[in-house]
Amino acid sequence: MAKPNAFYAQSGGVTSVINASACGVIETARQHRDRIGKVYAGYNGILGALREELIDTSKESASAIAALRYTPAGAFGSCRYKLKSLDENRAEYERLIEVFRAHNIQYFFYNGGGDSQDTAHKVSQLGRQLNYPISCIGIPKTVDNDLPVTDNCPGFGSVAKYVAVSTLEAGLDVASMCETSTKVFILEVMGRHAGWIAAAAGLAAEAAGDPPHIIVFPEIPFEERAFLERVKTSVEQNGYCVAVVSEGAQTADGTFLAESSARDAFGHAQLGGVAPALAQLVKERLGYKYLWAVADYLQRAARHIASKTDVDQAYAVGKAAVEFALAGKNAVMPTIVRKNTKRYSWTIGEAPLRKVANVERKMPRSYITKDGFGITPKARQYLAPLIAGEDYPPYRDGIPRYAQLKLQRVPKKLGTAFEAS
Amino acid sequence: MAKPNAFYAQSGGVTSVINASACGVIETARQHRDRIGKVYAGYNGILGALREELIDTSKESASAIAALRYTPAGAFGSCRYKLKSLDENRAEYERLIEVFRAHNIQYFFYNGGGDSQDTAHKVSQLGRQLNYPISCIGIPKTVDNDLPVTDNCPGFGSVAKYVAVSTLEAGLDVASMCETSTKVFILEVMGRHAGWIAAAAGLAAEAAGDPPHIIVFPEIPFEERAFLERVKTSVEQNGYCVAVVSEGAQTADGTFLAESSARDAFGHAQLGGVAPALAQLVKERLGYKYLWAVADYLQRAARHIASKTDVDQAYAVGKAAVEFALAGKNAVMPTIVRKNTKRYSWTIGEAPLRKVANVERKMPRSYITKDGFGITPKARQYLAPLIAGEDYPPYRDGIPRYAQLKLQRVPKKLGTAFEAS
Repeated sequence: MAKPNAFYAQSGGVTSVINASACGVIETARQHRDRIGKVYAGYNGILGALREELIDTSKESASAIAALRYTPAGAFGSCRYKLKSLDENRAEYERLIEVFRAHNIQYFFYNGGGDSQDTAHKVSQLGRQLNYPISCIGIPKTVDNDLPVTDNCPGFGSVAKYVAVSTLEAGLDVASMCETSTKVFILEVMGRHAGWIAAAAGLAAEAAGDPPHIIVFPEIPFEERAFLERVKTSVEQNGYCVAVVSEGAQTADGTFLAESSARDAFGHAQLGGVAPALAQLVKERLGYKYLWAVADYLQRAARHIASKTDVDQAYAVGKAAVEFALAGKNAVMPTIVRKNTKRYSWTIGEAPLRKVANVERKMPRSYITKDGFGITPKARQYLAPLIAGEDYPPYRDGIPRYAQLKLQRVPKKLGTAFEAS
Repeated sequence: MAKPNAFYAQSGGVTSVINASACGVIETARQHRDRIGKVYAGYNGILGALREELIDTSKESASAIAALRYTPAGAFGSCRYKLKSLDENRAEYERLIEVFRAHNIQYFFYNGGGDSQDTAHKVSQLGRQLNYPISCIGIPKTVDNDLPVTDNCPGFGSVAKYVAVSTLEAGLDVASMCETSTKVFILEVMGRHAGWIAAAAGLAAEAAGDPPHIIVFPEIPFEERAFLERVKTSVEQNGYCVAVVSEGAQTADGTFLAESSARDAFGHAQLGGVAPALAQLVKERLGYKYLWAVADYLQRAARHIASKTDVDQAYAVGKAAVEFALAGKNAVMPTIVRKNTKRYSWTIGEAPLRKVANVERKMPRSYITKDGFGITPKARQYLAPLIAGEDYPPYRDGIPRYAQLKLQRVPKKLGTAFEAS
């Protein structure tokens, strides 16, 4: 009988290093051709498995696969598609098994956040029930850094580095012109539920008075008066104020600042943006000249300024996933374990998927200063190593040369089509 | 008599490479200690000269000065302060001469855009009138790329590179998730009067269908219908649409899109943002899921992704300015001259300030495609070499180590204070 094949899929919001995990999976699988046949990637994530739209990665050259290590976004396509529970839509899970069986897939590598780990867990359960031999390994990925058990999540470190470097650079810009120009600069960053990304901006500050002067966390109920007071103090003391705000910033009653802001001429809610909302507030109450920026996708796609630590870890969890599968493991996820050393070092650990699925890790209150506007030394100690190191992509003519794949499809074997619910 | 000193000031909006010009000025002056005493820098630009707030750069170590080459923003402070005409406020110009005389300053290096070149020109005229020996040399700088005579302006190439790289990266992100997530992504970039910066986004595209699918230039009157049609076509053909819009985008009657957009609940004009305004339009008319980003200061401060060509040219114009002064020149500005070679090469030329002052160079219509939404091969040929090469700053603990100067002041010699008008 032919050697069993592997299926790999990217899930949810992509990052600048999720392809490094794909690279780790495929390169490691290629080193074990005696036991793993081909690696099939899902076109647009799990939808590719449901629709039997599989990409044959064996058609890609070694150099194309190597280039995934430094290519941002999802090379095989990703999707926002959460499988329902086994009870609610057992047919979807059975369809997965059907496709796996048709293509002799016995390894399932699912690269995503909490929802994806949950899906991988359920597939492994159904495999047992249906007596289909499938080894399900989750591969952690999320810029939100909110998976439990693992010390941190691949994807986060690079966003953190982007935000810290951008805050430092924009801070220098504002500082150099504040006497006659912009006094208040507001940068909005990602993080709807947790302030990990906003916290990383704090790494830009070395000494008292350095920007960012204010960080607005979703964990701390936003109080207009305290915020404005802090802006005013900063402008008076430093000549300017740099504030970094999380998109998830909200008031005590749970209203997102992005939602609470203005309505347009037609009465529609204004199109998001905590930064413009806070800038408006500053202008009305304090009258300072302001500017704001919303980095949005730029931050999570910025492979050009990725953290080397993050890239290395993303590759390592991909590699470990294959090794776990070959060791006969099932329903587990490689984790990043911070070693108890003076200088930061890490190793790969292992978490059962049932402990990872649907558990959200919050930022500890001890990482935020008492006044709610900054990070503590403890947070800094946790965050700093995650942005350490640079890992530049190659360039040609001033532009990064990111991977270009053939994305050749595997011929379908099943007569039935599948309509995603 | 003591050797004459030099005065250097940064003017207007800062860039990621204006300090590289400062580095070129100071390092070159230090190589000619036999003829140039000290280089004094204006604290907050020309205001520093008017107020006699001078920074003694001779107190800075060689390594601190060398670090300016890779440090963004204005290390000595810049300002938005335009001197009036000689007729309107002759006192200001006389004050400059007074300060120069008090500190034995006979070289005036003014690093800025069109207004600054005009000021440098007027100072040289007044020097002649008052019989005060002053050599006035302008040093070009502007992200807007709108100075005449010079082939391009230091500062522009690095913003162009940031915009091209960010468009490429965000484009990959959107492409990988467009089936189930964001279909339209709008990135707003600088350029109130000219579309040079927006045009640079076009360098991200290599083949037909590559993002950006739409560029909105200030030079082309914005037509809602044509824009929406183009968005729709792109989503239908490519599955998604990436649009890069200039902050200066405007309709045929000259209304800025940023202004024409919504009013908030209090009836105030919404706080700018062409990107959110266009996103709103797309949502209302086409119903696509969208996201938008406004890079703002991040783009002009992003030294971490500066163009090596730009850094080299910024340094070279600083160096040339000192060499021009030593050669006895006056009222001139070093320019960048594109050589007529197959492979891009450049050299330093010279323009009289009277030809530079207050002349704005527009982007030629031939750089924009007929449909008004893209760049032509001619534009690409002009732009591409300006973003070529990388020139990374050094890092420690994941953060760039930008210059930290002492900024020691020169003791004042004049009893009189000066109040800027």
